[in-house]
Amino acid sequence: MSYAREMLGTYSGAINVDADVLAAAIDAVSDCAQACAADTDADLDEHNLAEMVKCIRLCLNCVDVCTATAGVISRPAAYDGDVAKPLLQACVAICQSCGDECERHAQHHAHCRVCAEACRRCEQACRELLGALK
Amino acid sequence: MSYAREMLGTYSGAINVDADVLAAAIDAVSDCAQACAADTDADLDEHNLAEMVKCIRLCLNCVDVCTATAGVISRPAAYDGDVAKPLLQACVAICQSCGDECERHAQHHAHCRVCAEACRRCEQACRELLGALK
Amino acid sequence: MSYAREMLGTYSGAINVDADVLAAAIDAVSDCAQACAADTDADLDEHNLAEMVKCIRLCLNCVDVCTATAGVISRPAAYDGDVAKPLLQACVAICQSCGDECERHAQHHAHCRVCAEACRRCEQACRELLGALK
Amino acid sequence: MSYAREMLGTYSGAINVDADVLAAAIDAVSDCAQACAADTDADLDEHNLAEMVKCIRLCLNCVDVCTATAGVISRPAAYDGDVAKPLLQACVAICQSCGDECERHAQHHAHCRVCAEACRRCEQACRELLGALK
Repeated sequence: MSYAREMLGTYSGAINVDADVLAAAIDAVSDCAQACAADTDADLDEHNLAEMVKCIRLCLNCVDVCTATAGVISRPAAYDGDVAKPLLQACVAICQSCGDECERHAQHHAHCRVCAEACRRCEQACRELLGALK
Repeated sequence: MSYAREMLGTYSGAINVDADVLAAAIDAVSDCAQACAADTDADLDEHNLAEMVKCIRLCLNCVDVCTATAGVISRPAAYDGDVAKPLLQACVAICQSCGDECERHAQHHAHCRVCAEACRRCEQACRELLGALK
Repeated sequence: MSYAREMLGTYSGAINVDADVLAAAIDAVSDCAQACAADTDADLDEHNLAEMVKCIRLCLNCVDVCTATAGVISRPAAYDGDVAKPLLQACVAICQSCGDECERHAQHHAHCRVCAEACRRCEQACRELLGALK
Repeated sequence: MSYAREMLGTYSGAINVDADVLAAAIDAVSDCAQACAADTDADLDEHNLAEMVKCIRLCLNCVDVCTATAGVISRPAAYDGDVAKPLLQACVAICQSCGDECERHAQHHAHCRVCAEACRRCEQACRELLGALK
């Protein structure tokens, strides 16, 4: 069980969303932020650097949006849909774009394959959390 | 002239948005993130701590969303509206809520008055950038 | 295997540190940042709020230092000891202080028990990475 | 007067450091984080991309360390030298390296000239804060 899931189990107050869905999203955005930071670094080492610029840019945005999302959804006691929903939508959008671009490089660069997986899982987990939020 | 505005003046490529509007938003989200971090710390020192909990929570979300927005809009070479627009909408929403709550405490706590001003300016600057983005 | 460990396995270039030690540190700082963000939120819900102020403050610092450390050590291609070492020392120091404070509340607040564990593991993993860095 | 300086003027409790020195450091780390994020984006647009890789890497580390430093020193009510000092030392080190590298490109890339200035000012402000902290 991840710390995120274990932590949600300790909440004395009510959380207005399924704890498993929320914990899956927290873990996925944290993992995706890390994968994208690492992928940026690995991209910068590649010989076909000019072709990796788009991937680097998307990864940088993905780190920022995932990190903010991790913070906001890790503090569920006072969710505000007007903030959490567009933030999760931004996260879904960047994970989709970044996952698509990483997948294009997946055959040649194993780091992009791993990063694409992290983006896909994050996109899916954020969609599920969006669906579960009232 | 802020570093943000000066930096935008050096771009060799085209930026698809008015540089003054963009620089104003970059400066406003950076300032707001800082003000909210400082306000959290000042709130935690207050005697009426229980009444400040909502303010602390909103400030924490505001720091995270403003920091991500600062990163994403500081890299304008490859804007993606599907990411930038919902992120700016999340930023407008949290700055509005956080500004409202800080304003409620402004008479008693000068730090909340300063933070409310930073939130109002940030909300306005993000609205203007949203209007300027194609 | 975590994404961090899997990603390190894809590096074409040499990494000047044991990949298992590095991956353990990356995972531990990410987990600790999340646990501290969640613990802040849970602390703010407690009845003995005034007694939790120190814990909240330490958790806020721990989130910031762990997040920066996660970013820097996730990009190992061009490590600079003059940056990475003091950053890891700051991370060890805040995780120790935050872990101590959370442990004081662990019997009454299960969320602090979980957070203390995340801090202890992070402190240990950062110490090991510091020892492994040339 | 910056929001950071104005906010410090509202503190009811004592701050164990000169408010002008602290506010200058807060403003400098915030500005430097923004300049380095923008410089990364501008670097990725340059024709001599392979020569900019070191600059991009240093800027990415500088963003992360400056952002963490901004957060920690913006919450001065409970400074802990064991955390703040190594963090500021890491900030001085990355600003020095990043400023040196940006300066190498300053003649050809105006964005690197602006970023070098932000790094130099940040390095200096963090050194002064380190000197002022007990």
